[in-house]
Amino acid sequence: MPLKTFDISSVLTIEATPLTPEAFAPYGGVISADDQIKHVKSSAANYGTAVKIHKVAPIVNNFSKCPSGSEATANWNIFRCSAPKHLIETNTKSKKYTAKVLERHPFSTQTFIPMGQDLAKKSYLVIVAKTDASTSPQNLPDPLSVAAFVCKGNQSITYGAGIWHAPMVVIDEEVPHIDFAVFIHENGVAEEDCQECYFDPGYKINYDLSTAKL
Amino acid sequence: MPLKTFDISSVLTIEATPLTPEAFAPYGGVISADDQIKHVKSSAANYGTAVKIHKVAPIVNNFSKCPSGSEATANWNIFRCSAPKHLIETNTKSKKYTAKVLERHPFSTQTFIPMGQDLAKKSYLVIVAKTDASTSPQNLPDPLSVAAFVCKGNQSITYGAGIWHAPMVVIDEEVPHIDFAVFIHENGVAEEDCQECYFDPGYKINYDLSTAKL
Repeated sequence: MPLKTFDISSVLTIEATPLTPEAFAPYGGVISADDQIKHVKSSAANYGTAVKIHKVAPIVNNFSKCPSGSEATANWNIFRCSAPKHLIETNTKSKKYTAKVLERHPFSTQTFIPMGQDLAKKSYLVIVAKTDASTSPQNLPDPLSVAAFVCKGNQSITYGAGIWHAPMVVIDEEVPHIDFAVFIHENGVAEEDCQECYFDPGYKINYDLSTAKL
Repeated sequence: MPLKTFDISSVLTIEATPLTPEAFAPYGGVISADDQIKHVKSSAANYGTAVKIHKVAPIVNNFSKCPSGSEATANWNIFRCSAPKHLIETNTKSKKYTAKVLERHPFSTQTFIPMGQDLAKKSYLVIVAKTDASTSPQNLPDPLSVAAFVCKGNQSITYGAGIWHAPMVVIDEEVPHIDFAVFIHENGVAEEDCQECYFDPGYKINYDLSTAKL
């Protein structure tokens, strides 16, 4: 059951921008060596053949506060994701994805790490929204705050605990699918693991694949 | 300080084999959709555009048993790893890597997820050893039990808590480095986070790049 279905009859159009740790900070964290090697604490490792960049993204388990009291486990899942072509329109210069749902994991961060994608290729979209504080304790999304980011094959994102986001949107239509290693805490209680809101008729997210590499 | 330096004067040669979840099971876990989509519980997700494969690899935090009593945090680190060319010999048909050190994280699993590598490309070696039970409580490696695996760009590995392993060995010499997202629990006490043993003159690990794709 969705927490709410929002009527957004004046269809909202959002321009996706390149993912950076700074731009994504309000929504969680990023794992992106090209960005973080410049700013985050690092040290030599493995007898000089590696650089370790320390503590680049958050990990949170808030299930101690969940209503059911059911303990969660930290899990590695895989999401094998294909481009949702039925929701993508192609224009001469750009692409448009229609986003009709946002979800959130109220008690856990969730990290998506793409495996096997070209490092510079525009690979997936992340779509996020801020919470409307006036809706506490439901903490619904603010439908006017939706933002979207284009991510490369060597970038990973972590949604903050409770942050609203769209299901994963692969935008590389040249590959049959992308496999993501996904880290999350889950307790098996459906409404504590995942909540959803629907949007009618949905957001239009514009992104540009005219140069497929960022 | 190493726990021990082993004299292995009769140099040991080990043939690396392709990574599979079954072969690696004694040492930890694997995140590999091509393998696990066949055998592990899965379900449709994201309104039909994704398959979720459930709980594919272990996550363990045993720091409650560590001598110092210092609590650990779950951390996302990045390892940017280059091929250790000074330790790689090239023959007409194969490559040989000299492994001189094994390490372990006695209280935590450790997961390495490559980002930005071609999915089918032979990308990195993992080298592991079983514990010699007669050396409890030090739990030193059995120097005769060393095994090695060749991993593709869309495969991730998790070392079990306390499992001996070599530092990451990138074998793709065509790229400047591979970025790994690395998940581990750490408490900042050096000998509780990582222990090492040395081997003189080292293991010779044979692997085959004649077809660079597995």
